Amino acid sequence: MQKDDKKMANVAVLGHGIVGSGVVEVLLKNSGIIEKRCGQAINVKYILDIREFPELPYSGKFIKDFDKIINDPEIDVVAELIGGITPACDFVKASLCAKKSVVSSNKELIAKKGAELLKTAHENNVELFFDASVGGGIPIIQPLYQCLAGNEIEVIAGILNGTTNFILTKMIRESMGFDETLALAQKLGYAERDPSADVDGDDACRKICILANIVFGNHICPESVYTEGIRNVTPEDAAYAGEWGGVIKLIAYAAKSGDGSGVEMMVCPAFIKSSGHLAGIDDVFNGILVRGNAVGDVVFFGKGAGKFPTASAVIGDIISAVNSKGKSRLPVWSDNGVNTVKNRNEYKAAFYFRVTGSSADRFIPQGSQKLELPKKTAEETAFVTPVITEDEAETLVKNIEKSGSKLLNRIRVLEY
Amino acid sequence: MQKDDKKMANVAVLGHGIVGSGVVEVLLKNSGIIEKRCGQAINVKYILDIREFPELPYSGKFIKDFDKIINDPEIDVVAELIGGITPACDFVKASLCAKKSVVSSNKELIAKKGAELLKTAHENNVELFFDASVGGGIPIIQPLYQCLAGNEIEVIAGILNGTTNFILTKMIRESMGFDETLALAQKLGYAERDPSADVDGDDACRKICILANIVFGNHICPESVYTEGIRNVTPEDAAYAGEWGGVIKLIAYAAKSGDGSGVEMMVCPAFIKSSGHLAGIDDVFNGILVRGNAVGDVVFFGKGAGKFPTASAVIGDIISAVNSKGKSRLPVWSDNGVNTVKNRNEYKAAFYFRVTGSSADRFIPQGSQKLELPKKTAEETAFVTPVITEDEAETLVKNIEKSGSKLLNRIRVLEY
Repeated sequence: MQKDDKKMANVAVLGHGIVGSGVVEVLLKNSGIIEKRCGQAINVKYILDIREFPELPYSGKFIKDFDKIINDPEIDVVAELIGGITPACDFVKASLCAKKSVVSSNKELIAKKGAELLKTAHENNVELFFDASVGGGIPIIQPLYQCLAGNEIEVIAGILNGTTNFILTKMIRESMGFDETLALAQKLGYAERDPSADVDGDDACRKICILANIVFGNHICPESVYTEGIRNVTPEDAAYAGEWGGVIKLIAYAAKSGDGSGVEMMVCPAFIKSSGHLAGIDDVFNGILVRGNAVGDVVFFGKGAGKFPTASAVIGDIISAVNSKGKSRLPVWSDNGVNTVKNRNEYKAAFYFRVTGSSADRFIPQGSQKLELPKKTAEETAFVTPVITEDEAETLVKNIEKSGSKLLNRIRVLEY
Repeated sequence: MQKDDKKMANVAVLGHGIVGSGVVEVLLKNSGIIEKRCGQAINVKYILDIREFPELPYSGKFIKDFDKIINDPEIDVVAELIGGITPACDFVKASLCAKKSVVSSNKELIAKKGAELLKTAHENNVELFFDASVGGGIPIIQPLYQCLAGNEIEVIAGILNGTTNFILTKMIRESMGFDETLALAQKLGYAERDPSADVDGDDACRKICILANIVFGNHICPESVYTEGIRNVTPEDAAYAGEWGGVIKLIAYAAKSGDGSGVEMMVCPAFIKSSGHLAGIDDVFNGILVRGNAVGDVVFFGKGAGKFPTASAVIGDIISAVNSKGKSRLPVWSDNGVNTVKNRNEYKAAFYFRVTGSSADRFIPQGSQKLELPKKTAEETAFVTPVITEDEAETLVKNIEKSGSKLLNRIRVLEY
């Protein structure tokens, strides 16, 4: 990559963890094709890390002083691959203010501070790209604001967390319980030691917020989105979903509300019909459905995480940043301080209920579909209601509890 | 859209057929969101068509003289939605030479003349975009050279023709024959009166050539790609595919050859396992699988044709062209005169064979899997061979014919 007689773009990589090392390795491995496509070589000039890696062939690139990057006029692009808010946020802001485009894989940072950072980028006539923050290597963010920019987007819905999709897939296919499957996911490196951010839905929540920000143009605070994880989902629920003709997936969605005055958003486990576009996306794969008023439904899927898929997205963004030098897009979204997320009481869905007792007919809403497993394992009743509001579902829960039956689970039915 | 005090981009639309009228309608309908995303309004200043449409609210925009477009310095982007080579090619070239970026949905033009036109665009510092030429509204072309640009692409494979996918889906699900299904597709407007380009695979061939050009950087002539359509596929073949655990799809693929010296390309009906990424893409949907050396497998699917999906892609390109004003990418591919498509004798695949007669064991290769339908309808033998070369498959065909059995069909097994 040291072709001094040719044009060359210089990149600083912040963080040599899983993603950072993947980016450096792929940039080296694919340097020929990247130079051809980019019209210039992409050279990693610095790697910022508090650790040292003397055994690496590129050990001479490591630095510990961030200011060296800011003060080097040769650096065109900074790739922030540290994660978290501190110090990543300060590094990104300082880089943008020093007129360097930034590429980030940091979903927490983009979900929380995206509006502010996009504004800073635009003010400095540089770019902030973050395709790797959602869906790993799946191209989704650039397509949303480029290829699909002519659409009014009505819905964006996805399986955005590979860990929970792996767990649910195992539960469906092998009837494994949650704890057992989680332990397997941890053993295989698909789940972290503290799996809360994945299994409680917070990771998917950040990602759907980023996608909704792009699609609806306004900052949505992750805290304003009702988020339910998969800890309560059991193999029995998965079996009932099968009887009903579908599967259980952890779905994150954002939809324009019927009257157009806001956005309906939620992260929750959901019954999805087998014919649904997202139903067949299994294991650690992520999938994203975009419904536009011109294009109809388009779906993207692929590995949503991992060293090299994420590196692929980061490098795509680096190439875009190099190519867009001197041109800055309008900020993709801004923060006008208004919470556009509608109160969930008004949302409508059919609901699956599973309750103890076999004579629960007195509270089953009219028009519900009763579900039976081929092998009855316990005295319980399962049914899918017609479409009702969240409030009506809450009332049903209370009636079930009053009747002396116990609510075993309650899962929404979504049409994606 | 007539906000004279604001920045505005002016577009000329060539051709007011299905796609052209869709583009104008969606630009009007979604003008608010497009102006917001683009930073300026997009105004259709002229529509070139030999016909007149006095009943339309925008009838004043129609012109018949192409030179008016070329000579108007206010026109930033020309959208070529005529199709075919003449006069589209001349119009595109003249527009580029007049320093106007061009957006085209014309797969025939791009497959045949893309290298030349991309060169002309670059020489004039304008852009030529053609996302609508493959996969209708599915974002595929921009993602390939942006988001996935860091990858060495090993394979690109797709269901690229909605008409044939509709026919095959009906055949699989409802055991309908080819002629009957084609008639239905024509009735529903999914197939043209002369369906040859679709059912013989030529349409899919042009599209895979465009994708392969982008991925491998060199012009591939559609004529150099072995192309087999679906006229010979029967409901019985579909039933055998079901027994084998899969479906039949018309697949177009391009793969880097094992030794890296060229490209293996083909368009053919294929047995695909139900677990394959493209197996579940049914009806008029198109799906595209990209296998990169960093990202792994990513898949895109959606409606591959139709007025509004195609308009979505054209408008995405118009917005990109407006935003990229004054910056021209390197040509995505060039034509160095070398045919990089490898001779198909060397390609390897498993093959499904169906032959008359029930005692055909003498020519079934060792390791083949025999297939039986639950209801035997005739004295015939069906089997899937191990992976063999195209040459070995040809030899097998000859041996079958020599033996007095008749070859009923022979379909490749592909792993997508």
